[in-house]
Amino acid sequence: MKLSLTSIDNIPMVEPGDDLVEIILAGLASMGETLQSGDVLVLAQKIVSKAENQYVNLNDITPTEAAVLLGQEVDKDPRKVQVILNESNEVVRKRPGVLIVEHRLGFVAANAGIDQSNIYQAGVDGDDLCLLLPLDPDASAQALRRGIADRLDIDVGVIINDSIGRAWRIGTVGLAIGVAGLTALEDYVGGTDIFGRELLVTQVAAADELAAGASLVMGQTTEKAPVVLIRGYQPQAPSAPELTGVKPLLRPKAMDMFR
Amino acid sequence: MKLSLTSIDNIPMVEPGDDLVEIILAGLASMGETLQSGDVLVLAQKIVSKAENQYVNLNDITPTEAAVLLGQEVDKDPRKVQVILNESNEVVRKRPGVLIVEHRLGFVAANAGIDQSNIYQAGVDGDDLCLLLPLDPDASAQALRRGIADRLDIDVGVIINDSIGRAWRIGTVGLAIGVAGLTALEDYVGGTDIFGRELLVTQVAAADELAAGASLVMGQTTEKAPVVLIRGYQPQAPSAPELTGVKPLLRPKAMDMFR
Repeated sequence: MKLSLTSIDNIPMVEPGDDLVEIILAGLASMGETLQSGDVLVLAQKIVSKAENQYVNLNDITPTEAAVLLGQEVDKDPRKVQVILNESNEVVRKRPGVLIVEHRLGFVAANAGIDQSNIYQAGVDGDDLCLLLPLDPDASAQALRRGIADRLDIDVGVIINDSIGRAWRIGTVGLAIGVAGLTALEDYVGGTDIFGRELLVTQVAAADELAAGASLVMGQTTEKAPVVLIRGYQPQAPSAPELTGVKPLLRPKAMDMFR
Repeated sequence: MKLSLTSIDNIPMVEPGDDLVEIILAGLASMGETLQSGDVLVLAQKIVSKAENQYVNLNDITPTEAAVLLGQEVDKDPRKVQVILNESNEVVRKRPGVLIVEHRLGFVAANAGIDQSNIYQAGVDGDDLCLLLPLDPDASAQALRRGIADRLDIDVGVIINDSIGRAWRIGTVGLAIGVAGLTALEDYVGGTDIFGRELLVTQVAAADELAAGASLVMGQTTEKAPVVLIRGYQPQAPSAPELTGVKPLLRPKAMDMFR
């Protein structure tokens, strides 16, 4: 098996309302490349959020008393704390400088995935500007997949990824936060090894592994390579409706030994 | 940036004492391929453990009383519990069927990474055979890197990976458990974004992202593709002795909010 992960050239700074399908196809064309059926596109959440105008100006936020108190406790701007709480189901852990929450989308992340780097709006001080995650990343991924099918009459997989911290290990890795057109969790339950023994490792977070590899190709210091083309993976369509999207990767709190 | 991840053909079933450098170079030669300086090789821990004869026959294990009691509590063979405890610094969480431990190597993993799939020894019932992780995966990676330098006079990066579960998310992903010749944790502290703002995400677990992508190429159901060649990454040598190996990726317990 050979997988290639290629960053797409000439992706401009994305503005609210931009058509990402158009931008991606133009970027590929500038490289003399076209999409093929079975390709997987990985998009940094940041450009999806920008296209969906998920900006928040902190000057528009009035923190509640709870956000003010929590802000004092963890030494954070109470307006930013309020934005984090608005995006979260609950606070999982807190300590100075860090709020780890269960995001409204179901995954656990520091500061609800809210970003302040590589964003800009004319007339707004950078310290006052935040970018939230996409409203519904699975739907965003599905819209991109449909947009490409409409334009090129081919099926591709789409993953929206973000760099997220882990328990136990230092450093972020790219993880899938939105998935369309592929099975996020590959399930080998009931499978056997080459000696006929039942497999112990039965579920592989395939979308997370693709998202992680793509993150490395995107780089971190600039937003210049926010789209990666993965070729050679040949995604499998989810075998049941409940296996679509990113949800199969999210461990419900009741099944989680670590919160 | 273009990264290619290619599984190496014709890797035989590895036996104790086998020379992995020899096996990998022969596999590459069978594909008409040779290593280049800057390549990264990712090896499944299983073949390293096999070459190092990290097999344990459970019939040779006499469980302590503590292992017997813990085995009853979590419904596991007490001999296997004993092997897990022998490989661990402490039990982090337990519930029926699962022991999550801090492995003696410092990372958190279910059942101390002990494996029973895709292993075989003549005359031993499969249920009685276990394979431990390599004794010192950083040293194993370094030995492979040196072996290749000796044979080909080039520098490559080497990662030994394993499929490991996560808090919060379902499914395993490949993670680095041994690293040589590259910086496992890329550090952007003090870096700025394209608008000159200080970066919020400052540490990227590069070796884990490479390990994850390689896992996908290895596949899970058989041991037929346990070595992956990554080309296009161009590893950077660690800038200080304490940044070598996998240790920069391991969050010390005192800094960990989730155990």
